[in-house]
Amino acid sequence: MIPIVSVVGKGGVGKTTVVEKLVAELKKRGYRVATVKHSDRGFEIDREGKDTWRHAQAGSDTVAISSPHKIAIIRNVDRDHTLAELYRYIGPDFDLIIAEGFKHDRAAKIEVHRKKLGRGLVCTKDELLAIATDEKLKLEVPQYGLKDAAGLVDLIEKRFLTEEKQDEVTLFVNGELIPMNPFVKNIIEKALLGMISALKNVPQATNVDIFIRRKVGE
Amino acid sequence: MIPIVSVVGKGGVGKTTVVEKLVAELKKRGYRVATVKHSDRGFEIDREGKDTWRHAQAGSDTVAISSPHKIAIIRNVDRDHTLAELYRYIGPDFDLIIAEGFKHDRAAKIEVHRKKLGRGLVCTKDELLAIATDEKLKLEVPQYGLKDAAGLVDLIEKRFLTEEKQDEVTLFVNGELIPMNPFVKNIIEKALLGMISALKNVPQATNVDIFIRRKVGE
Repeated sequence: MIPIVSVVGKGGVGKTTVVEKLVAELKKRGYRVATVKHSDRGFEIDREGKDTWRHAQAGSDTVAISSPHKIAIIRNVDRDHTLAELYRYIGPDFDLIIAEGFKHDRAAKIEVHRKKLGRGLVCTKDELLAIATDEKLKLEVPQYGLKDAAGLVDLIEKRFLTEEKQDEVTLFVNGELIPMNPFVKNIIEKALLGMISALKNVPQATNVDIFIRRKVGE
Repeated sequence: MIPIVSVVGKGGVGKTTVVEKLVAELKKRGYRVATVKHSDRGFEIDREGKDTWRHAQAGSDTVAISSPHKIAIIRNVDRDHTLAELYRYIGPDFDLIIAEGFKHDRAAKIEVHRKKLGRGLVCTKDELLAIATDEKLKLEVPQYGLKDAAGLVDLIEKRFLTEEKQDEVTLFVNGELIPMNPFVKNIIEKALLGMISALKNVPQATNVDIFIRRKVGE
């Protein structure tokens, strides 16, 4: 699974601004970045009267729109998704995912803090990778200024992006991410690539996606 | 791959209205339906100033938002995608995909026709599954009234949805859908499910997604 870093903090503290700065800095350094925002209350992203909006109103479970520069997909779901579950939809074609919100998730977290919003933090010390703050806090967690995207990205690089890139093998069973040790990953990868290499007219696989849906259990 | 039916026709002929009626009728009959619209010119789906819009402006390659009822994902892409390629993002958890536009795609097509827009059709007879029209045309293609969603869905059911549901096995290599015969599908499915069943603490798999990204070739 690719690394996920979540920017958390109290409402109005400036999480989105920190995400913007992190994304800009990561892109400047040449990384492929996805972002994902958590919305407790729901959101309206489509516009009334647009064709895709009309498809959704008619009852479509998932609505997509495709153009030469952009693809959008809006899915109805029946519960809140974890970052690991969202990863199934976001996909593995990034070096890093920056999340906003998701304070109860297990991803590494950067908390944004401002003096004027009071001393307490949303996260405990052990959950935090770093704090972006406008005052020095008495906590043994790396602290950066609110505008110090370069410092935060140095830390993210050191923690998540320096290792030589390994092949990525990600498995979801019934929608759930299944942790695998390197040995198991390797067996599954080699077996699948072996089978695929036996197919006719199929290019050398650098990138494989497989979906299985069984009739049983439906 | 799950069936895809594309609604095509001249601009302003009423494609979206036909899609709405098809979706409503399919949902009434209990099917899981996704829709996808083709936009030549591009689209603006997010709203200026929203957090996700800001993530995208900052340079994020893909922007997602997740709530308890809905997930939206907006990806930057560098070319127009075919329906088969879009299927990788839409996913297999539907009985049918209804597309709007995509007149050059190979999916089965329903052309919407109105007398007042002139006699010619966008598609040739051989490409067409049916025509939704306000006049009888001299063509050997099944024809339905513009509001006859029940008739059109009867035809779609007969053509695509009556077979007893088989296990779905879908393979993409380097982003391209790889056609497989039932024998090959079966081998890949059995081998994968076998390996997965050997993993500890993994539930009985009815639904499997695997992504492999190899370092080589990048």
